[in-house]
Amino acid sequence: MDGMKKSALDYSRKKKIEIRILAQMRTKDDLALAYTPGIAEVCRTIINDESLMYEFTARRNMVAVISDGSAVLGLGDIGHKASYPVMEGKSMLFKRFGNVDAIPLIIGTKDVEEFVETVKNISDSFAAINLEDISAPRCFEIERRLREVCSIPVFHDDQHGTAIVVLAALLNALKLSGKGKDVKIVINGAGSAGIAIANLSNRYGFTDMIICDSRGIIHRGREDLNPYKKEILSYANKNNISGDLKTALKGADVFIGVSKGGIVTANDIKTMNKKPIIFAMANPIPEIMPHDALKGGAFIVGTGRSDLPNQINNALAFPGLFRGVIDARARAIDDEMKIEAAKAIVDYHRNSLSKDMILPQILDEKVHRFIAERVRRLILSKHK
Amino acid sequence: MDGMKKSALDYSRKKKIEIRILAQMRTKDDLALAYTPGIAEVCRTIINDESLMYEFTARRNMVAVISDGSAVLGLGDIGHKASYPVMEGKSMLFKRFGNVDAIPLIIGTKDVEEFVETVKNISDSFAAINLEDISAPRCFEIERRLREVCSIPVFHDDQHGTAIVVLAALLNALKLSGKGKDVKIVINGAGSAGIAIANLSNRYGFTDMIICDSRGIIHRGREDLNPYKKEILSYANKNNISGDLKTALKGADVFIGVSKGGIVTANDIKTMNKKPIIFAMANPIPEIMPHDALKGGAFIVGTGRSDLPNQINNALAFPGLFRGVIDARARAIDDEMKIEAAKAIVDYHRNSLSKDMILPQILDEKVHRFIAERVRRLILSKHK
Repeated sequence: MDGMKKSALDYSRKKKIEIRILAQMRTKDDLALAYTPGIAEVCRTIINDESLMYEFTARRNMVAVISDGSAVLGLGDIGHKASYPVMEGKSMLFKRFGNVDAIPLIIGTKDVEEFVETVKNISDSFAAINLEDISAPRCFEIERRLREVCSIPVFHDDQHGTAIVVLAALLNALKLSGKGKDVKIVINGAGSAGIAIANLSNRYGFTDMIICDSRGIIHRGREDLNPYKKEILSYANKNNISGDLKTALKGADVFIGVSKGGIVTANDIKTMNKKPIIFAMANPIPEIMPHDALKGGAFIVGTGRSDLPNQINNALAFPGLFRGVIDARARAIDDEMKIEAAKAIVDYHRNSLSKDMILPQILDEKVHRFIAERVRRLILSKHK
Repeated sequence: MDGMKKSALDYSRKKKIEIRILAQMRTKDDLALAYTPGIAEVCRTIINDESLMYEFTARRNMVAVISDGSAVLGLGDIGHKASYPVMEGKSMLFKRFGNVDAIPLIIGTKDVEEFVETVKNISDSFAAINLEDISAPRCFEIERRLREVCSIPVFHDDQHGTAIVVLAALLNALKLSGKGKDVKIVINGAGSAGIAIANLSNRYGFTDMIICDSRGIIHRGREDLNPYKKEILSYANKNNISGDLKTALKGADVFIGVSKGGIVTANDIKTMNKKPIIFAMANPIPEIMPHDALKGGAFIVGTGRSDLPNQINNALAFPGLFRGVIDARARAIDDEMKIEAAKAIVDYHRNSLSKDMILPQILDEKVHRFIAERVRRLILSKHK
């Protein structure tokens, strides 16, 4: 067994999370308050005003981290049971960095209808729902429908968490390169992450974008596009270019890879505009390794990996975002909140920005609180 | 606001439960084990052997406390949201007395089909499921169907937890009164608790039983019986007596009330056999108050209330039972395990038994561990 595998199994063999009781439960009187007959008073209070669930119950801070196991990390469709460890790990990140009480929940169906109904039916137990590792394009429909039927925020982190952190990284990289919103961006990968990155970047104001999938550039002439790929053509690939990724990269300023390892070469990067920005986020093997990218003339390189400089990882966004959203009791997470989270990351990192550190460290607890506070304020300002 | 209400709301206004991280999460290396890339190794391990979820994930000790809010305490059908505080309180009891990590889950549908499908779909997230406060007779069908489709124990505590503790109380009361299995038992109330008490007592070996519902004695001539009430006639009311509760009580040794307050009088008790045993468990007002029961000649009186002697409460059974069942990884909870739990309570209390203390205290932590160990051993002995 290799070292990482052994360490990982040893780490998980011990109990990693538990429920902890914060209230006193020592005497009969305590029990009479924690359970019957006292708890009936809390029930009666909520009968009269359901919003008081947030005042008097654990729902106020509970999040479900939910998956069907259909697109787990780089492992693919491994089934809901085998996806549980990822949900548990994510729950730990929620608590560690956002003080959000998150629990892992795996759903034993791949049927979109049944998945939506199941999650809807349990949603009143939670302050928010984090969807995770659900395959595209199912994930788009699932999230859209759950947002319609649930009264709480529903957030597919593989889409939006990624998009937020990529946007923050992009803004910082552009700062360093002295470029602006008119850069030409190439996104490789049109699954959950790629499409969300395109949408949020466009929403922010980037207009020159080309998105590629495994068959090359997405353009109006293609007849094999799902509705979500078609949708991005309303703003992307304005000149309706066709061809492969190499064609797309020519003259581009930014490459964002959420695809698979080893598909970009140093020579490809040489064809890009000057000071090219490379975010090669395929896991575990990036689209191009940083030293190759630098060889090709990359100005800034980021990856998804924690053992390389400039890790671009969702964990920088979702804990603070959820903290802020829950504290402000938002009913949904919209693009404005996501952009605010990205801008908060940029602002927080203002004085520490460098080519080898385009983002704050995930372990920096203050950045999560900073994001939370900015998101909370944004939401509260809109309700005034 | 009265004192109890104020205390109860104050108690619940503060956070009562949270998720706690037990693993180390201080360094980048920790994060690499808690989440990507390390967690992928745990996923791979489970792909190869799903049972390893119990070795490597929080599922091993996670229980869902689930309700649709259709029959909550004495409050009735108050909706799922208003039932949440009870589920949260129950989760606290699970942790406090059984070291079981339980989470409150409320289901936003009253449709049996949809409820079953929802719970089935999330069941692989848990080591066991505790159903709670679901109205009869729906609760019987829901539990039966979930037991069929889930690979983990599904336990409706209002039925079986109550039945276990009543059986333990009954065995102890009979010890004190010097009576045996041939006693005549009258159960008033044929909802979830009444029917489960009848079934488990019969399974234990009591054969002389009459069950009453709000329309009087359940007998073969009645045409208004649901299937569950009909089923108990396979062993109960052998002489096919008809009439009201008063008729039933004449000459009876034991009265078990799971119905409503104030419907039994001292004079009724005078018509019972000598040394009558009275368990008047309606909440918050018992079928007869203890001082009235004693006036009528009751030998032993128990109620559901913590402020009166001889409280008969599920919380004495479910924490230890679940602990034992989870530790032994039983796939279901059967009657033998329930009877073992009742017998464990009796054995534990052997040297402390008195008319004013027919059961151990819920706050006595050792009784829960004793039950757990006895149940665990029973299950493991059967697998040999």
